[in-house]
Amino acid sequence: MSPEPVGPPRTAVATVCLSGGLEDKLRAAAAAGFDGVEIFEPDLVASPMSPGEVRLRCADLGLSIDLYQPFRDLDSTDDDRFAANLRRAEHKFDVMAALGADTVLVCSSVARDAVADLDRLGAQLHALGEEAATHGMRIAYEALAWGAHVNTWERSWEAVQRADHDAVGLCLDSFHILSRGSDPAPIAEVPAEKLLFCQLADAPVLSMDVLQWSRHHRLFPGQGAFDLPGFLAPVLAAGYRGPLSLEVFNDVFRQADPTRTAVDAHRSLLALAEATAHRGEGTDPIGEPAPRVGRPAFVEIAVGPDDDAGLDRTLDALGFACTGQHRTKPVQRWEQGSSRILLNRAGRSGAAISAFAVESADPAASARRAVRLGAPRPARERAPSEADLPVVTAPDGTEVFFCPIGADAAWTGDFAPTGRTATSGGITGVDHIGLAQPFDQFDEATLFYRSVLGLEPASSAEFAAPFGLVRSRAMADADRRVRLALTVSLLRRGSWAPGVTEPQYVALATDDVVGAARAARDAGAPLLGMPDNYYDDLGARLELPPEQLAAYRELGVLHEQDQDGAYLQVCTEVLGGRLFLALVQRVQGADGYGWSDAPVRMAAHRRQRQARLTVTSSA
Amino acid sequence: MSPEPVGPPRTAVATVCLSGGLEDKLRAAAAAGFDGVEIFEPDLVASPMSPGEVRLRCADLGLSIDLYQPFRDLDSTDDDRFAANLRRAEHKFDVMAALGADTVLVCSSVARDAVADLDRLGAQLHALGEEAATHGMRIAYEALAWGAHVNTWERSWEAVQRADHDAVGLCLDSFHILSRGSDPAPIAEVPAEKLLFCQLADAPVLSMDVLQWSRHHRLFPGQGAFDLPGFLAPVLAAGYRGPLSLEVFNDVFRQADPTRTAVDAHRSLLALAEATAHRGEGTDPIGEPAPRVGRPAFVEIAVGPDDDAGLDRTLDALGFACTGQHRTKPVQRWEQGSSRILLNRAGRSGAAISAFAVESADPAASARRAVRLGAPRPARERAPSEADLPVVTAPDGTEVFFCPIGADAAWTGDFAPTGRTATSGGITGVDHIGLAQPFDQFDEATLFYRSVLGLEPASSAEFAAPFGLVRSRAMADADRRVRLALTVSLLRRGSWAPGVTEPQYVALATDDVVGAARAARDAGAPLLGMPDNYYDDLGARLELPPEQLAAYRELGVLHEQDQDGAYLQVCTEVLGGRLFLALVQRVQGADGYGWSDAPVRMAAHRRQRQARLTVTSSA
Repeated sequence: MSPEPVGPPRTAVATVCLSGGLEDKLRAAAAAGFDGVEIFEPDLVASPMSPGEVRLRCADLGLSIDLYQPFRDLDSTDDDRFAANLRRAEHKFDVMAALGADTVLVCSSVARDAVADLDRLGAQLHALGEEAATHGMRIAYEALAWGAHVNTWERSWEAVQRADHDAVGLCLDSFHILSRGSDPAPIAEVPAEKLLFCQLADAPVLSMDVLQWSRHHRLFPGQGAFDLPGFLAPVLAAGYRGPLSLEVFNDVFRQADPTRTAVDAHRSLLALAEATAHRGEGTDPIGEPAPRVGRPAFVEIAVGPDDDAGLDRTLDALGFACTGQHRTKPVQRWEQGSSRILLNRAGRSGAAISAFAVESADPAASARRAVRLGAPRPARERAPSEADLPVVTAPDGTEVFFCPIGADAAWTGDFAPTGRTATSGGITGVDHIGLAQPFDQFDEATLFYRSVLGLEPASSAEFAAPFGLVRSRAMADADRRVRLALTVSLLRRGSWAPGVTEPQYVALATDDVVGAARAARDAGAPLLGMPDNYYDDLGARLELPPEQLAAYRELGVLHEQDQDGAYLQVCTEVLGGRLFLALVQRVQGADGYGWSDAPVRMAAHRRQRQARLTVTSSA
Repeated sequence: MSPEPVGPPRTAVATVCLSGGLEDKLRAAAAAGFDGVEIFEPDLVASPMSPGEVRLRCADLGLSIDLYQPFRDLDSTDDDRFAANLRRAEHKFDVMAALGADTVLVCSSVARDAVADLDRLGAQLHALGEEAATHGMRIAYEALAWGAHVNTWERSWEAVQRADHDAVGLCLDSFHILSRGSDPAPIAEVPAEKLLFCQLADAPVLSMDVLQWSRHHRLFPGQGAFDLPGFLAPVLAAGYRGPLSLEVFNDVFRQADPTRTAVDAHRSLLALAEATAHRGEGTDPIGEPAPRVGRPAFVEIAVGPDDDAGLDRTLDALGFACTGQHRTKPVQRWEQGSSRILLNRAGRSGAAISAFAVESADPAASARRAVRLGAPRPARERAPSEADLPVVTAPDGTEVFFCPIGADAAWTGDFAPTGRTATSGGITGVDHIGLAQPFDQFDEATLFYRSVLGLEPASSAEFAAPFGLVRSRAMADADRRVRLALTVSLLRRGSWAPGVTEPQYVALATDDVVGAARAARDAGAPLLGMPDNYYDDLGARLELPPEQLAAYRELGVLHEQDQDGAYLQVCTEVLGGRLFLALVQRVQGADGYGWSDAPVRMAAHRRQRQARLTVTSSA
């Protein structure tokens, strides 16, 4: 437990996390709600603002300057060079004084002349501490994971102890510590006054050179695989009360809109502080946990007023019935089993998923939580009589509604019954929603659904689509009631790849995909044909009964075998715009998403879209 | 030496190297001049063409099918599973028979049940060989660098020897062998009839998991750091006469136009065969080495007919004189020292480098070589009286002319003298040309300039520009007469980064950058202002005389220190379009390109362009 009660954590972000010039970065950090920044020296050097002007600008924006960084390769086995390094430090203290910053990050040396002897290193840090103290400054010493002699936090702590100076303490960076597999628990024993700064970064598990891993692939907490609460808890337990500060080098964030990245970044700190508080350390800045989610209550598909891409005919062929017409808007409600699809004809053109709703044990609390986590709220037009469903906007622009658990929720009153009921095409509900993400928003989406909806990454894969590699990640709740399949191309597509925007889809659950697909096909649903080669290969890989293989071939069933069972799917053609529907069956609890079959499916969709283009252009 | 005279090598490419569907890939391979292909099984599985149709399509295109690949995880410590794997193989033999392919790639197993015992492994390979032989097929066994028990070519060769079957031989893949640092020299001792296939791939030196390295970062020969001729020479010395086949998994190529990628790929094999022939093995398919290059003879800048972006005024201020007017085209020749700039007012708008010329000891031979290496020739309009300079088009669209060595080359007769001469602003020649590359063309450009002009990679770097990371690579001849600085953004830029297209530049050499810059400024050249912070930091890093630092600050000199000397540069503003000029001085033979200062320069250019946009939009 913490030694004393504490307020909500201060949040900070290193300017190196964000794209643009220093002015862009400061403005974005302030707009996202950060309390302070770390000034990354190259950002200052390239800026036309003097240090004094930066100080004023930050004050205007309500930002403190919590750290100036980095000071590299301080210590030296060459006394002359060390003396020159001390003079270099003096210049930095002058810059910091003008900035109004009092702490500088000194990272362990990677140079050939780095000092290995801890006593000598301690003495040099002491000398720097003396110099710092005369300027009213402090030294936060950090072990780089690839430092020449100091590359663990334990060794940096030994060096700081030998420095034995009030102005010399530690900077702890979660990446450098967790990437090496070090145990952060003993940090709890470090005296609080020696913990000068705490930098936070997550990362995916990658088997690569730690320097490259650090410089290209860091992520905000909650986007990667590190146990960040397990790192932060001992830091807070030790009594650290400085800012929680992000230092994330990431190729995508470096080129993305800094205003969005900063919101994502700030969200990550709130979620981390919450998770750490749940482990008994620090203060929860959100205050309410994510309410339990139920099933998807509906999926809204926007189509153009004139062009519905045949969606109503397809839904009809799949056994859905149009059970309601919205009282004030051009929206139809289609139903089958527990699945509800809203067709909104106020869309622009084509067909796309514009919104989905999840059942929540407390919809209002879900929405409050989302807003506290920085989720924007869309401005929806609502007639006075309509149900006021809480709604927020996901990173890709999809609107996420929260509904009470149970079928007859308030919002269904918005619709005038048509009197029709579903014929039942064997669809029992929505299995999952497939949302191809904009290139810059994939990791942001992971954190959004994790923190806002309480979903967790369920599985991930990388596969070769016809036009480049695709990364995928499923997000699901523990009970697999809500599943989302997120994908993103590994590189932003250029002019060659014709399907620049991959289609989205709604996967509809069935217990008999062959029966459901056959019924749908017979009723006229435009099922996507799959190549014979696929079935020849499938037959060679798996010993399937011939009649099963024949049915697969006839109906275009894709069969993904996993350890436990099989994930079976049949897809429709892309129904105009960027949408298709899928019938999916999970055999023996298979937990997959058909990603091993995705390249075949994507190639087939491409052929279909090309054929359509050919028909259109020759018409 | 080879045991017998051989013809030019057969060339092949694995379909996995190229983007698109199988039809796209085959068409691109044929158009680029490949003799054959390896069919990557997932490409066939996703294709609507039956194996028999693929066979016909390839025959139509003049392509042989040299390999079917891959067959994974054949061997097993579980006899039942091995029997199932043999049945799986039978299916593949049927597919291959329909394709008209007679060799299948079997790669070493990565499975838990992989066989460690070489005798047992040999026996299983023998059994597969028996099965293959009854179908008239052959097994090319390859050691994956990450195979469970077989991960070196030496061990795969041991397994093949123990298999002791006429239908079982080796597939040698340069990546798997060179990535592990294995010595390929002893391959020369393997009997030729056991070398069934040779796959070629280059790669950059990366410190990462070899599987990820292989799957994402392979390059075509000549684009990376491997000694491919050193690999191929012993393969040919052993008597291998099968195709030289490319198997390159690369994230960029996977999403780029396959027609272009295939040309790049084919060029890589020709250049590799040439380099190997120069080591005494195989036949040189090009026949003439790259003639020696001299200096850049001219740089052509295209400007719009009305908007010259002030380029003539700037050239004048830099001490250039307009010495000639083209007799039939709206082109001016500007000169100073040995540097010549052609201002072509037939451009569209703005200013951009449209062409450059290099002196060649044999211009016609240079052009022949370029065409043999697949470089396209632009269709230039030429008046009957004009000099017919050989010209080819580089990957980024820049035209590259070849001129005879010496100042008074034939082409200068195209210009009517104006009678003016340069005032001399201290510029002695063209130091280098900076060409920001299109995202998909960076590695292609490296190979183009390497094979066509005989330049070599001189240095490379990665730096953080204001809108994302940038990769850079200098290409130069050994005498540093021709230098090119190529850059590319690490990720294709999205909507946020305003400078989607980085500017190009011409770096003009001077022996006194301060003097030249002061004269240029006084004459009205729009020099780019640099931030004071840069000079404060520079003064803290380097002990420069105060008056030198003051002159730098006054004129915007950027100072990059390296081990030997310093690379000094002063840049102009971006002169409309996407062009700036730079004055550069190399102190004590510095060999850099100012990349450590590039972020500061880019930030300054961005401010200048933003300011211009502000002025324009408020005007």
